[in-house]
Amino acid sequence: MSQPPQLILTQDDLKKIAAYKAVEFVESGMVLGLGTGATAKHAIDRIGELLRQGKLVNVIGIPTSTKTHEHALSLGIPLSDIDTHPVIDLAIDGADEVDPDMNLVKGRGGSLLQEKMIEGCCKKFVVIVDESKLVDYIGGSGLAMPVEIVPFCWKFTTSKLQILFKEAGCVVKLRVLGENGNPYVTDNENYIIDLYFNKSIGDLRAAGDAVLRLAGVVEHGMFIDMATTLIVAGELGVTVRNKC
Amino acid sequence: MSQPPQLILTQDDLKKIAAYKAVEFVESGMVLGLGTGATAKHAIDRIGELLRQGKLVNVIGIPTSTKTHEHALSLGIPLSDIDTHPVIDLAIDGADEVDPDMNLVKGRGGSLLQEKMIEGCCKKFVVIVDESKLVDYIGGSGLAMPVEIVPFCWKFTTSKLQILFKEAGCVVKLRVLGENGNPYVTDNENYIIDLYFNKSIGDLRAAGDAVLRLAGVVEHGMFIDMATTLIVAGELGVTVRNKC
Repeated sequence: MSQPPQLILTQDDLKKIAAYKAVEFVESGMVLGLGTGATAKHAIDRIGELLRQGKLVNVIGIPTSTKTHEHALSLGIPLSDIDTHPVIDLAIDGADEVDPDMNLVKGRGGSLLQEKMIEGCCKKFVVIVDESKLVDYIGGSGLAMPVEIVPFCWKFTTSKLQILFKEAGCVVKLRVLGENGNPYVTDNENYIIDLYFNKSIGDLRAAGDAVLRLAGVVEHGMFIDMATTLIVAGELGVTVRNKC
Repeated sequence: MSQPPQLILTQDDLKKIAAYKAVEFVESGMVLGLGTGATAKHAIDRIGELLRQGKLVNVIGIPTSTKTHEHALSLGIPLSDIDTHPVIDLAIDGADEVDPDMNLVKGRGGSLLQEKMIEGCCKKFVVIVDESKLVDYIGGSGLAMPVEIVPFCWKFTTSKLQILFKEAGCVVKLRVLGENGNPYVTDNENYIIDLYFNKSIGDLRAAGDAVLRLAGVVEHGMFIDMATTLIVAGELGVTVRNKC
């Protein structure tokens, strides 16, 4: 007997599946936090599509970055900000890592501060990822945990961050733009230091507080206890998990 | 019998007395953190004078603001930064408030972030004030505790700060420049929110951590457990107190 034709899903297909699932939570009249990155972009596209089709009305989007602002604007999604709408009904965003307690690493796309401000004031925060983003512990993917710092004496602050996480074998790198080595500059005119750990940093809240206590640090990319729903798309289907 | 002529000391005289006393701690060869504000300026003037007289040699100054940088440069004090000199032997700076545990409020002059970065990495931090700066608790003077925040959605962050200190009757104000109401912009291109309390905010370290956890906050003006020596000039003389 011949096998049924096998459907090969790309990582982008999985992102799209998770994103579309998340948009099922969107209702007319909602104030929506709009995330940044490839997965969130699929969700924004879908919201734009439903608005055009008239299946959604009266939503207001709060973009988490200049890039998302431009994209949502191009789709005709009405936009505002948290100065005007300080309470958000629902935010949808991707993540770079998700640990078993639904704590996240975000900001590899460089927009962690706006994301954290906006997603910190929403009633429901739906995180959408493909299964490659699931990790046993924060930093466990071997990829970066970003920290936004002020440009003033950034080498000094970078060195303080490395010392803070010495026991986790922390390697620190200034994020640069292209090949000329110029620092990547955030929407808030700051720099990003990428931290790489080779083991768990332990209590995340304590680690986060220690990072924030360093004068020169603006924000870190750990989103601790913020996600309320996690949607994971994998080869075997989509799972939806709510925070207990 | 006629009374001896009474010496009336102005507040500025007292600042100068405290500043000169602090400079007695300076030794040749030291890396020095140079504070910002009227009291610190007297100390910098004195250091410049001792250098010109050859009574001090080989000191390197680390200025805590653009203003101090320019002033120290004009006096011929050799300057560097904490990227190059990450360990400072001695810092001298004023403070807006000093509580009984030698915790400080700083930043009414607008330079709290650089001051905290620099004074956080010195072996000895000498704080110089006139006696009007002594308070029973942080905020007790009725004057501002400044918080540096990113300009992005500053109204939102300001409202979060007010809610955080609701129990202390907190009033919040964006610091503005002159009469046109434009925001005051720090050396790091951020805004300052001035917080006024009408009673004690309790555990300072917990309050500081809570402020820093607000995404959008860059730094606050409480310098907790940082001063090692306090010099107070008053009508009855100068007192020097070392941290136990």
